Amino acid sequence: MGKSNLNPYRFFDADPTIRKIANELYLEVKDSPIVSPHGHVDPQILAENSPFPDPTELILIPDHYVFRMFYSQGISMESLGVPTVDGAPVETDHRKIWQKFADNYYLFDATPTGAWLAYEFGEVFAIEEKLNSRNAMNIYNELQEKLKSSEFLPRTLFEKFNIEVLSTTDAAPDTLGFHKQIISSDWEGKVIPCFRPDMVVNISTSVWRSAIDDLSRAADIEIDSYKNFIQAIENRREYFKVMGAVSTDQGVTSPYTHQLSETETENIFNRALQGTATDEDAALFTAHMLMEMARMSVEDGLVMQIHPGSFRNHNDYVFKKFGPDKGCDIPLDTEYTKNLHEILNKYGNDLRLTLIVFTLDETSYSRELAPLAGHYPAMKLGPAWWFHDSIEGMTRFREHVTETAGIYNTVGFNDDTRAFASIPARHDLSRRVDANFLARKVSRHIIDPDDARRLIRALTYDLVKKAYKL
Amino acid sequence: MGKSNLNPYRFFDADPTIRKIANELYLEVKDSPIVSPHGHVDPQILAENSPFPDPTELILIPDHYVFRMFYSQGISMESLGVPTVDGAPVETDHRKIWQKFADNYYLFDATPTGAWLAYEFGEVFAIEEKLNSRNAMNIYNELQEKLKSSEFLPRTLFEKFNIEVLSTTDAAPDTLGFHKQIISSDWEGKVIPCFRPDMVVNISTSVWRSAIDDLSRAADIEIDSYKNFIQAIENRREYFKVMGAVSTDQGVTSPYTHQLSETETENIFNRALQGTATDEDAALFTAHMLMEMARMSVEDGLVMQIHPGSFRNHNDYVFKKFGPDKGCDIPLDTEYTKNLHEILNKYGNDLRLTLIVFTLDETSYSRELAPLAGHYPAMKLGPAWWFHDSIEGMTRFREHVTETAGIYNTVGFNDDTRAFASIPARHDLSRRVDANFLARKVSRHIIDPDDARRLIRALTYDLVKKAYKL
Amino acid sequence: MGKSNLNPYRFFDADPTIRKIANELYLEVKDSPIVSPHGHVDPQILAENSPFPDPTELILIPDHYVFRMFYSQGISMESLGVPTVDGAPVETDHRKIWQKFADNYYLFDATPTGAWLAYEFGEVFAIEEKLNSRNAMNIYNELQEKLKSSEFLPRTLFEKFNIEVLSTTDAAPDTLGFHKQIISSDWEGKVIPCFRPDMVVNISTSVWRSAIDDLSRAADIEIDSYKNFIQAIENRREYFKVMGAVSTDQGVTSPYTHQLSETETENIFNRALQGTATDEDAALFTAHMLMEMARMSVEDGLVMQIHPGSFRNHNDYVFKKFGPDKGCDIPLDTEYTKNLHEILNKYGNDLRLTLIVFTLDETSYSRELAPLAGHYPAMKLGPAWWFHDSIEGMTRFREHVTETAGIYNTVGFNDDTRAFASIPARHDLSRRVDANFLARKVSRHIIDPDDARRLIRALTYDLVKKAYKL
Repeated sequence: MGKSNLNPYRFFDADPTIRKIANELYLEVKDSPIVSPHGHVDPQILAENSPFPDPTELILIPDHYVFRMFYSQGISMESLGVPTVDGAPVETDHRKIWQKFADNYYLFDATPTGAWLAYEFGEVFAIEEKLNSRNAMNIYNELQEKLKSSEFLPRTLFEKFNIEVLSTTDAAPDTLGFHKQIISSDWEGKVIPCFRPDMVVNISTSVWRSAIDDLSRAADIEIDSYKNFIQAIENRREYFKVMGAVSTDQGVTSPYTHQLSETETENIFNRALQGTATDEDAALFTAHMLMEMARMSVEDGLVMQIHPGSFRNHNDYVFKKFGPDKGCDIPLDTEYTKNLHEILNKYGNDLRLTLIVFTLDETSYSRELAPLAGHYPAMKLGPAWWFHDSIEGMTRFREHVTETAGIYNTVGFNDDTRAFASIPARHDLSRRVDANFLARKVSRHIIDPDDARRLIRALTYDLVKKAYKL
Repeated sequence: MGKSNLNPYRFFDADPTIRKIANELYLEVKDSPIVSPHGHVDPQILAENSPFPDPTELILIPDHYVFRMFYSQGISMESLGVPTVDGAPVETDHRKIWQKFADNYYLFDATPTGAWLAYEFGEVFAIEEKLNSRNAMNIYNELQEKLKSSEFLPRTLFEKFNIEVLSTTDAAPDTLGFHKQIISSDWEGKVIPCFRPDMVVNISTSVWRSAIDDLSRAADIEIDSYKNFIQAIENRREYFKVMGAVSTDQGVTSPYTHQLSETETENIFNRALQGTATDEDAALFTAHMLMEMARMSVEDGLVMQIHPGSFRNHNDYVFKKFGPDKGCDIPLDTEYTKNLHEILNKYGNDLRLTLIVFTLDETSYSRELAPLAGHYPAMKLGPAWWFHDSIEGMTRFREHVTETAGIYNTVGFNDDTRAFASIPARHDLSRRVDANFLARKVSRHIIDPDDARRLIRALTYDLVKKAYKL
Repeated sequence: MGKSNLNPYRFFDADPTIRKIANELYLEVKDSPIVSPHGHVDPQILAENSPFPDPTELILIPDHYVFRMFYSQGISMESLGVPTVDGAPVETDHRKIWQKFADNYYLFDATPTGAWLAYEFGEVFAIEEKLNSRNAMNIYNELQEKLKSSEFLPRTLFEKFNIEVLSTTDAAPDTLGFHKQIISSDWEGKVIPCFRPDMVVNISTSVWRSAIDDLSRAADIEIDSYKNFIQAIENRREYFKVMGAVSTDQGVTSPYTHQLSETETENIFNRALQGTATDEDAALFTAHMLMEMARMSVEDGLVMQIHPGSFRNHNDYVFKKFGPDKGCDIPLDTEYTKNLHEILNKYGNDLRLTLIVFTLDETSYSRELAPLAGHYPAMKLGPAWWFHDSIEGMTRFREHVTETAGIYNTVGFNDDTRAFASIPARHDLSRRVDANFLARKVSRHIIDPDDARRLIRALTYDLVKKAYKL
């Protein structure tokens, strides 16, 4: 893409043998199309194709990876323009916020956010200088100028990024209006939904009841029983499939799986409808719905994803004032061997199912997930997730899982981002880290150079296409 | 051994300083005798010394490390010739199975199985080409030819492998007939048993009752009480010692240790005899028997090994159809600090005991096991086990435990294999990884070259001889 | 300092690119003053400034890092001169002990103790040869000679070590007599206390009652209620502040935090006074006192430190015979996300609080602690602690936390030592490891050389000064 001050050998080991091999492997896939099977980009951006408003709005305000770090250093969210739930005023001078961003840019040293931002500035926007307190306003102006031009419209960027397919993540009751708008437009970009039922599965939240009403409307089914609820879910999965979806996704606190009896589910569901369900009911219902989602996937072929182990909204103050997804979700110790026993025993030998499991607990890589994925034909390992989607984190993932699960029980890369402009940055980083991982193995004569070339193409393109049936 | 296409510097870091030192250290021990104090080779192989039937039977069918990976990729076990429990037919054309093995050989890229197989082909059988779909039948024929020759008889290989001593693992009621046959033959090879009481200790299994009958017969003691049971165990330990055993081994789900009162044990044992023991009884009885085995080891000098933390036969379908040890044992989160408290307090300061502890949970290396072994004189750390017996896994083991426990609270290498022909491959890999680990330390001036030479000899030969009293 | 046989590039990677950068970064901070905000040096040493009695007394007898390793190899503590609780006789011939130390010095190969001792011998005492069986007595004599000279008096060493400030750790009832003595002397060295209330907080110990009496006397408050107890604590914190303290420290088994009601605390405290408190009372009271200490820190500005997760005195035999701190404290699996939820929700957003959290459970680095510190403004991460204060351990700490928490949510180095002469050894090792960590990042173009120079100064000096308000 743009003109850049980034070192072409960045993220490769300094050792000349490894660096040379890593670079060769990287060049094999540097220009491969981006396949993005899991992420959180707002489809409205691509449906409407309006210019991004300004640099602060593009890069800082919606990205909790960015403002989380500033908040941890005592910079208030209000001063960064993060909107409040109740509409209480926050800083609106986006140039002032940008200056603060630049003043504290050094906090991202040696972090993945730092690496992604460097790519965005250098490669996407062809900014040659590194952001600092002095050049902050010049860079703001330069970015602002570019954002106004047609070259930086969302769809143009989508094409420039060479995105072959982009999956969004969409709530079960979603009518997928923006996806429809994209499909019916004359634009050829492929943007598909992913079915996420969390809102209607988690009966312990305050929004569950209204989510059920939404689901009811969307599916045109009156939901007054568990049976109707399941019909509505199946109806929506079918609709998502028609709209291009290839997968579902569930975010759960624990990956515990357990099939309840019909009577038990009906009873719990009725208590939920009456607002009397307990926390234990909620945990059991989630465990049961993981089983049900697997059954449905066996039937309709949608790839099933599980993202467990996050303590959501750990900071009550921030949650109440600014809402969810504000950088205060914290990982939990997560067990898989016992928790996935029931789902894997019922569906793990079934070749019709693809179950992709993610983790925020790196201790499960070599202990539980690699052994499970290295045995059960239905199970595959999702890539290093969230906090671990970094140079060291991705390297640890490969080092901990490859020897037991092999390369072919993994599924390539997920960018998992809501920051549209960071997509190529994340894929480029991933390709470099994988190339370096393989180069180390080649340099130690663990794998042959020819095999390494096949493997880097698998990790970049082939595995994600196959696993997600794209 | 054979002519080989393997790189002589394989598994060493690319950095020329490290590589040079690693190679020098490796050459110090490359030709040292193999001491194999823990493994699962069938003694019948060496007792009868018959030719191995064919390549598929030698390499694939009995090795769950191999077919596990194929199964995970949707290749049925039947199609790989893995025998069923009920005798239902499976593929019997071993050439057809071999072709499938070759077609999917790439799945072992960057896995320890891949590294071991490369050594077996290249060094043991002097096959120059890497196995692939095209050369599969030629290599099959070449191997088949060799297996028929006297050069590849089990005892000849044992000598060629330079095995000084090989320990098998044998159930408590085993009469050790094959060991007797070896001893009474004119062959000089040293093959010793290891006493494994799991079958008679685990009162929760369906086979316990018949195992007790076997034990009763073997010990010539009628087992109608806990007291008799203990006598029978002591009797068999004595017999195993006479037959050359130096150690015992216990595979337990949890390493929880707890001494029960005489009344409690008698009550639990009687419930077990009557078939009314609960799961809690079983867990307590195992905890108690760990204490008892330590007491006996203090008395008779047998080294005590504990292998905890595997969820055996996680896949019911596979277990029912194909039996145990079919690649579906999955590790569990395992706690040692509290669980070993009682056994270490009672026996951990006793210099007559050697307690070697293994783990499948790498998180315990630096947190629990290294601090415990770095304090209690009786406790030593077993090497990286099972899924972790790999280049990265063994490196992590050394990196996580050495700084706290030192080198001298570890016990060298265990190959732990049932695949006889893989023994030299595993020892060679271990020697290379240890040499590279030490070379990194020398290159960073953490240890001196002279010390490193002493340490590589300790890791390869001296420590295992001393720890296992060989 | 002294003449030394230590390699000037020790602990840096062999790769010439990395080594060159690491050395340049190290030279930036090699001579920076030592700021030691947390440790266990006995203030009496600096108050009295008497010569250290002899090498064995200086280096071996008081240091459980050293004799722990010997004990693990079957060398009795008695034979090492470690004093018994009941005064039962132990070896008193310090030359004989020193010879044993030298004979077994190889056990420290590749351990941090080995690296620290090498520095002490080489740099502090200018001993050119490496200790071994043959030169043991010569080196003893040489050390003995030096210890008698004024050059090696504690205060002279303090100055030679270039210590800017040294914090000791002192029990809540301590009258800080030695600190007073230092302040009122004409010596300029800055030695400050740290307030450690464990003895009066942990109501389950046998010494609690007498500790409360001591606290009562020290604070001149009769403690007959929880309310009085809190007043006494606040009184002592104030006194410690006057005496120069900037921080408090709590060693707890679990980091569970929970605010009890006034009635609950009074009831538990009364039960404790009557000697009828249960283990559950003790756990709840500790959880509550963590909340109270945070409240007080918000009010008086003392930095709050938590050191959780050690199973103290795991070996009853050793504890009974030799007392606490004898090398048998073993780490425990430790959970932070749920346990710190209450304290962080109440005080974590308060910029008046600095809460520095340590761990012995490395699995919490990337999973819990880095995400928490990367969000809550009040929380910072303490450096790699105890067993992990080593080359590999410190490297793992940086690799696991930096990408999520950044560099600026950490607080530099703590030497945490009771071995006065090891202080410069530990700081030098830390500076080298940090320099090497940063050099790897520079060599991979993850950070710029200029940023790395700023970061090594931050890690060595700036962060510790800021975090501890020094």
